[in-house]
Amino acid sequence: MKVGFIGFGEVASTLARGLMGEGVEVYTCLEGRSTRTRDLARSLAVQPCSNNHEMAGKVDIVLSAVTPSQAIFIARELGNVNGIYADLNNVSPLTVKEALEMVGKANTVDAAILGSVRKNGLKVKIIASGGAAEEFSQLNDYGMNIEVIGPDPGQASAIKMLRSAYTKGVSALLLESLYAAYQMGIDEEVLKYISQTEGPGFQESAASRMISSLYHARRRSEEMGEVVKMLSTETEPCMSRATLEFFKALDKKVAKLEKKPANIHQVFLELE
Amino acid sequence: MKVGFIGFGEVASTLARGLMGEGVEVYTCLEGRSTRTRDLARSLAVQPCSNNHEMAGKVDIVLSAVTPSQAIFIARELGNVNGIYADLNNVSPLTVKEALEMVGKANTVDAAILGSVRKNGLKVKIIASGGAAEEFSQLNDYGMNIEVIGPDPGQASAIKMLRSAYTKGVSALLLESLYAAYQMGIDEEVLKYISQTEGPGFQESAASRMISSLYHARRRSEEMGEVVKMLSTETEPCMSRATLEFFKALDKKVAKLEKKPANIHQVFLELE
Repeated sequence: MKVGFIGFGEVASTLARGLMGEGVEVYTCLEGRSTRTRDLARSLAVQPCSNNHEMAGKVDIVLSAVTPSQAIFIARELGNVNGIYADLNNVSPLTVKEALEMVGKANTVDAAILGSVRKNGLKVKIIASGGAAEEFSQLNDYGMNIEVIGPDPGQASAIKMLRSAYTKGVSALLLESLYAAYQMGIDEEVLKYISQTEGPGFQESAASRMISSLYHARRRSEEMGEVVKMLSTETEPCMSRATLEFFKALDKKVAKLEKKPANIHQVFLELE
Repeated sequence: MKVGFIGFGEVASTLARGLMGEGVEVYTCLEGRSTRTRDLARSLAVQPCSNNHEMAGKVDIVLSAVTPSQAIFIARELGNVNGIYADLNNVSPLTVKEALEMVGKANTVDAAILGSVRKNGLKVKIIASGGAAEEFSQLNDYGMNIEVIGPDPGQASAIKMLRSAYTKGVSALLLESLYAAYQMGIDEEVLKYISQTEGPGFQESAASRMISSLYHARRRSEEMGEVVKMLSTETEPCMSRATLEFFKALDKKVAKLEKKPANIHQVFLELE
């Protein structure tokens, strides 16, 4: 099995490392990438290609794992491919359909990652829909955790977007209400009394959500932009729009955050 | 022990029933109340008073349990009382302090209910702060579940308000994102995949929150009005303001809801 990655950030490099451990040949194009990315790819001994076209000609499955704003651009630039093309990006159903139409039809997959690649590695849950979803799920033989949910592109991203609307909204609520509590000197009490109704895992998951949302504020706001784009076609998504605005403001405030906060207290200090 | 209730809605009548079962004498004023309330008070054999002044003269502890908008009006009308006065209303720290100053100082309590009186009855958790919080907690000898958290009025309500900002925001997020999922025919899938990361109790608690928030949309919007009033003195509470707007719009939409929905599907049907 040969797999090529477009983009080589956290998602791609984590999956690449895992797949190579299972005997898969992994390719990527490193032209124009940062020194850090090139060094990372070289240290993993990924096979370099001079461009994405060349790579697509060599592999069985191309995986696009770029930022939401690049998803369509990358697909347009690539054009038709012969193998399977899976879009792993955090984009709305409309965006993923537009991107997939540019590279083919029956051979494409709308793939959506649910959960943390950093925590779960190759075993992270991926839901997949589209003409080639079944073939794509052959990667389960190489340690991946892909669940085919249907034949239509857009289904997987829609589920992911709506799940995001909820989970990212919860993160924004936590940051807003607990920071206000911190300013009033009652953050520990508020956290304690919320925990009494939310269950035993609440404090830990709240801390992890706040830390991660602060650190990835820009990515959260890009993803929420896609959520709002999707929901606005039906109604006015008041809560999701507020979540988007919250993360935009947060990104402006902590734009220069160099280190991930170690605990909730450090999150509050960054917000001051 | 003699306790008097100002207001005799769900909270007051539930606590009254419980306290009477523990041998407490319960008083309330029924002048000008609805037939339903008068019948309820009579069926419980609560001692009737012709006005709140008369009642306050007879009891050890006065409990105010009215709607947020009435909290100050009721206190102003009552004026100084000799016994203990506890404000149980869902109001902001500023509102509760203003109300308590009208009836006294050392003899007052800021009391905040955390959780559902309907589900927990007399055992519902109540946090209390203010000059008379310790004396107020003597009601624990009669089956109540009061936790004294500090000497200053406003502390208990502040904790409750910030807890509300989170829990009511979560309810609004659930209603918005799952209704959008329902419109796209993927509500079951979205609920399933959120549950996989949120833990085993999620589906049940999500259903209960959505049903209750739809049915009590007006009360939720009044409570969120108090939350926003409190938070706006420090910053612009983007998520809480959206929650307020969400419940205002929801209240307009379902104003005539006569029966509590039995399940999530009925919630979606009401939203259509």
